[in-house]
Amino acid sequence: MGMMLYGIPASTCTARVMACLYEKGVDFELIPVNMGAGEHKQPAFLNKNPFGQIPALEDGDLTLFESRAITAYIAEKYKDTSYDLIRHKNLKEAAQVKVWLEVESQQFNPPISAIVFQCFFAPMYGMKTDQAVVDANVEKLGKVLDVYEARLAKSKYLAGDFYSLADLHHLSFTHYLFKTPYESVFNERPRVKSWWEDISSRPVFKKISPAMSFGDK
Amino acid sequence: MGMMLYGIPASTCTARVMACLYEKGVDFELIPVNMGAGEHKQPAFLNKNPFGQIPALEDGDLTLFESRAITAYIAEKYKDTSYDLIRHKNLKEAAQVKVWLEVESQQFNPPISAIVFQCFFAPMYGMKTDQAVVDANVEKLGKVLDVYEARLAKSKYLAGDFYSLADLHHLSFTHYLFKTPYESVFNERPRVKSWWEDISSRPVFKKISPAMSFGDK
Repeated sequence: MGMMLYGIPASTCTARVMACLYEKGVDFELIPVNMGAGEHKQPAFLNKNPFGQIPALEDGDLTLFESRAITAYIAEKYKDTSYDLIRHKNLKEAAQVKVWLEVESQQFNPPISAIVFQCFFAPMYGMKTDQAVVDANVEKLGKVLDVYEARLAKSKYLAGDFYSLADLHHLSFTHYLFKTPYESVFNERPRVKSWWEDISSRPVFKKISPAMSFGDK
Repeated sequence: MGMMLYGIPASTCTARVMACLYEKGVDFELIPVNMGAGEHKQPAFLNKNPFGQIPALEDGDLTLFESRAITAYIAEKYKDTSYDLIRHKNLKEAAQVKVWLEVESQQFNPPISAIVFQCFFAPMYGMKTDQAVVDANVEKLGKVLDVYEARLAKSKYLAGDFYSLADLHHLSFTHYLFKTPYESVFNERPRVKSWWEDISSRPVFKKISPAMSFGDK
């Protein structure tokens, strides 16, 4: 039996895991979670993730949650299969992957998720977009991407001259950012723009992006 | 030459790395960064961490930043030395370590760091403590620790019946929380209280805690 992924493909965190599964060529079944009906807050799902958030992954008798932990598990379990996302044979390269995974998590994710939340999810939940929050986070994201711009002058991808899980983790939120009026924060920085064009041209992005449809008219 | 850690031992993120270095018995030299003089925003330090945050680690010609990436690197490099913090010989246990590392990063850290910032650092920077922010985050942290309480009914530590890097990552911020009026958020939950007493009784906590002295009179 293959892996079972509980989530919805329009969700950034579910899509992050799907991108990793596709990149490694791992068979999985996507089990939709009815968020509208509050299924993620019901006991059956809380048994999989006690925080009541999607996604969760079942692999045999192992149940995992937190999208970045799930991708790290998949990248580790299948490290010798298909493309190595964590550079496990080279301690120094693997260390740089760890650094840029944390940069995505601690520096990039907070501002971009705030922008995407305000532009898409707040209106969906009947809340007004808080433009002051958007503006502050666009500025923060710009400063983070200034660091990326300098980094990408030294290496083709974030962790080095190799695509890695650190790059992959950026796919889903950046996809949504490009549906907001703020894509210029990427496009104004030439190396960041080229890097995004590169990583979003990989086949996995074409597999996950059609379902990431919040904000489509 | 041993590792060189740039930071200050009173900082939660520097202390997190020091705890890991002590746990693994790795020789290192601590190079103080004069935050008051803005040394972390000067070119020499920005070459080590372009985000201008402590700590940074140099190991030979390798320079790393982001405290959680540094600890993951140390735990990996010395996985066969001293106590194994990442359970690298058991894929399922290693997966649970990954999950609970992410829980600390994504669920626990945001509310506890907000409380500690408001109670210690805001006054140090001449800002007023925002009690509404403190109260909201004490409530959030309580909900996170409700999940911990349930988890710790099933296993002695977060990732299983073994101490791991996931537990270690909680040491420094929790140390400061116990200097605020909000230690009850831990002490009201008996399993969380016991878990904290256990992990803070390890020798490494006694090595790092005396220097974590913000808030002392």
